[in-house]
Amino acid sequence: MGEFELIASYFTRPELLARYPQVQLGVGDDCALLRPPAGEVLAISTDTLVSGVHFFADVAPRTLGHKALAVNLSDLAAMGAAPLGFTLALTLPQVDEVWLAEFAAGLHALADAHACPLIGGDTTRGPLAIGITVLGSVPPHLALRRSGAQLGDDIYISGSAQDCLGQARAGLALRQGELALGQLDAQQALQRLECPSPRVALGQALRGLASSALDVSDGLLGDLQHILRASGAGAVLDAPALLAMAESRPVLPALPQAQRLDFVCHGGDDYELLFTAAPAQAAAVAQAALAAGCTATRIGRIALAAQGLQVLDALGQVLSLAGGSFVHF
Amino acid sequence: MGEFELIASYFTRPELLARYPQVQLGVGDDCALLRPPAGEVLAISTDTLVSGVHFFADVAPRTLGHKALAVNLSDLAAMGAAPLGFTLALTLPQVDEVWLAEFAAGLHALADAHACPLIGGDTTRGPLAIGITVLGSVPPHLALRRSGAQLGDDIYISGSAQDCLGQARAGLALRQGELALGQLDAQQALQRLECPSPRVALGQALRGLASSALDVSDGLLGDLQHILRASGAGAVLDAPALLAMAESRPVLPALPQAQRLDFVCHGGDDYELLFTAAPAQAAAVAQAALAAGCTATRIGRIALAAQGLQVLDALGQVLSLAGGSFVHF
Repeated sequence: MGEFELIASYFTRPELLARYPQVQLGVGDDCALLRPPAGEVLAISTDTLVSGVHFFADVAPRTLGHKALAVNLSDLAAMGAAPLGFTLALTLPQVDEVWLAEFAAGLHALADAHACPLIGGDTTRGPLAIGITVLGSVPPHLALRRSGAQLGDDIYISGSAQDCLGQARAGLALRQGELALGQLDAQQALQRLECPSPRVALGQALRGLASSALDVSDGLLGDLQHILRASGAGAVLDAPALLAMAESRPVLPALPQAQRLDFVCHGGDDYELLFTAAPAQAAAVAQAALAAGCTATRIGRIALAAQGLQVLDALGQVLSLAGGSFVHF
Repeated sequence: MGEFELIASYFTRPELLARYPQVQLGVGDDCALLRPPAGEVLAISTDTLVSGVHFFADVAPRTLGHKALAVNLSDLAAMGAAPLGFTLALTLPQVDEVWLAEFAAGLHALADAHACPLIGGDTTRGPLAIGITVLGSVPPHLALRRSGAQLGDDIYISGSAQDCLGQARAGLALRQGELALGQLDAQQALQRLECPSPRVALGQALRGLASSALDVSDGLLGDLQHILRASGAGAVLDAPALLAMAESRPVLPALPQAQRLDFVCHGGDDYELLFTAAPAQAAAVAQAALAAGCTATRIGRIALAAQGLQVLDALGQVLSLAGGSFVHF
């Protein structure tokens, strides 16, 4: 099977593309042509997953297809943008049709769920890697930047009745044989690691409400630092609120107490939205989360830059937490 | 040097981005924000270069930075689109600051020459690969698609006083030790292989003139088939016109006659524009090429689909040419 047959078999769906008004021209020409909504700006993000670095080589191809797009949709969500479409740069060591069919199924299922079709791409031979560039749009003054956090704003983290920060980290520990979990906890932890749900609806619901936002991919504390630096602010986090959240969901209650807070604060691959909003918006934030089918848990507040980033225990004492988040080099 | 320092040192240029009105937000948030010209559609293309597949591992990093963007700009050119910006997904085996500085210099120099700044990206560890997604814009009804070729249209290939099809293929043969060339020819052949000039100005000059277009990356005959299939047409190419073009430029006159036509017809990596236009547009096409600082050579005409793709010699006899172009699998 050659490159063009491969693209035609797994990555070209002309009947489906015709259903999307934003797609003027899809896979098969020198460029795709996309019609963004009038008056909106384009939001663009790129993320590459490399075998052995971002995923285990033996991961199920269907979940890999899902995750490769999910981490990119999560960036659109963090900007408050609505998805328009994406391109795929697929590097494969060889053509394995069973693998490709499963990968494409996982990819297209998530794409369809978010009305974000594959509009173009490139297939090449080499070590397995999946590069996706996703395009979305947002009214220019409603984009959720990292730089808008204000003194006194509440800090929130998204989740759901099942999902919270740290579960994906537990999934990684499980995959690495460093942790044992019961069957249901193990399922949930692996689901969170391999099949994250990007908070696309929440991101759009937070337009005009959140003062800043990002998605947590490298760990809560490390990623919060990006908001603090961009906004010239400090923050005080509430450890009991973080732990209460973790203890009301599956997986983390099965871990020793010390590891629990570590996974919540430093675990990566969560793809939850971390955002700030003025205290007056608290009811509106709760309503936005409800409408988006998820939760928003208040975990602290924005403080003076001079305070840096502090995590307080139940008695208001500053906890010492080894810093840092996942880094690639 | 960590991931964020690397991005800050080599791939973030806030003062420069501020000069581009289309860039509302550049490197450093979850997404870049781009303002496309009102009333135009977006043109999007993705191309990945993998070490050992698309380039020799020891290629000069400055020319690699140039080429990685050039092949993407060439896709915009083939659509008649004006560049707006690009994202970079860079996968590196390790951080080599000398290499990075050179790579970034080559990349940014071409970006600046085309007012197409780096607006976002992703840096990760793994086998060396460069993935670029380029964004441009074009008025919706002026995009140069592959599907518009009409019976009787002339077929053209771009070039310059120095440059023509087949020279890059000679550069590859030289690099592989299969060919010896004099110093000036060798310089030109390697320049064409490693430092192609995307025909961005020509692509825009052909808006409203060309009936179809693409850029030749995998070989003239193979790529022409894409236009023929998309347009439901056949073509008759004129071998003497192709050879006359090759013989008036450096490099190819040094090759044996048989190899010359083979390199012109099947050589890849040329990044010239192959396009069609009605015979009534001949003067306008020549004028557009002149204005864009290049040449457009008529090499044949569009025929009935039933005729397929024929190459005729000086006596009008059909030449037999082994088909196909560069394929990745």
